[in-house]
Amino acid sequence: MTREAADAIAALRVNTAFYTAMASGDLTEMDAVWARDEPVLCIHPGGAPLQGRVAVMASWNEIFERGGPPIVHSQDSVSLIRGIAFVNCLEHIGDTTLSASNILVWESSAWRMVQHTAGVLTEIQSATDRPSGPLH
Amino acid sequence: MTREAADAIAALRVNTAFYTAMASGDLTEMDAVWARDEPVLCIHPGGAPLQGRVAVMASWNEIFERGGPPIVHSQDSVSLIRGIAFVNCLEHIGDTTLSASNILVWESSAWRMVQHTAGVLTEIQSATDRPSGPLH
Repeated sequence: MTREAADAIAALRVNTAFYTAMASGDLTEMDAVWARDEPVLCIHPGGAPLQGRVAVMASWNEIFERGGPPIVHSQDSVSLIRGIAFVNCLEHIGDTTLSASNILVWESSAWRMVQHTAGVLTEIQSATDRPSGPLH
Repeated sequence: MTREAADAIAALRVNTAFYTAMASGDLTEMDAVWARDEPVLCIHPGGAPLQGRVAVMASWNEIFERGGPPIVHSQDSVSLIRGIAFVNCLEHIGDTTLSASNILVWESSAWRMVQHTAGVLTEIQSATDRPSGPLH
């Protein structure tokens, strides 16, 4: 296996660990996923950008007080760019599907998250079924 | 000015050029913003992840056939992580506000975009006004 393939697989494993932590509402596991030495950013679905570890972890704490959402992920894909892992995937919560981008850096012998953004998938794929069109 | 400050300002300028190209529906200017040598990803509001330059530029071409959206941006912020510029900002189209993440790499003497994600801001900031809560 090439170093790049091993890196990609390891990054995808951390992406899965992120969703496992979210679904189980495990704040310790979620905390372990996020980077410590780099600035982090999180945009929850419909939310404003949250900058910095304190704001991001506080948001997970608030979410987990309601219990972890019953989330599963699919179609995970990873690109390594300049040593940073760009993972994107779909998220599924009940009948709702979301598009997600998760970005990981190599820090202290592990891939750790510096950015998570997710948004509800609303686009209708057929242009003829799209009366008003997307925003952009 | 430090090198990091100069890099940050240059990245913010390219972020502005991205929105100028979008608002004016200028496909040539939009094309100039995006990276050539790295894999690119774009998640339009409500859309599925679009991977690769061909898919991303085709999406802008389709959007610009309807004319560029009347978009302005605000609250731009940039973090430099391992030489990659992570810009986030709010987007405004009419009365709609969106959260955006734009990621740029230094390529051929310019910052160029490798990832754009945007989603409509729907979150109600006051928890008491939030009957069902955000998805996560």
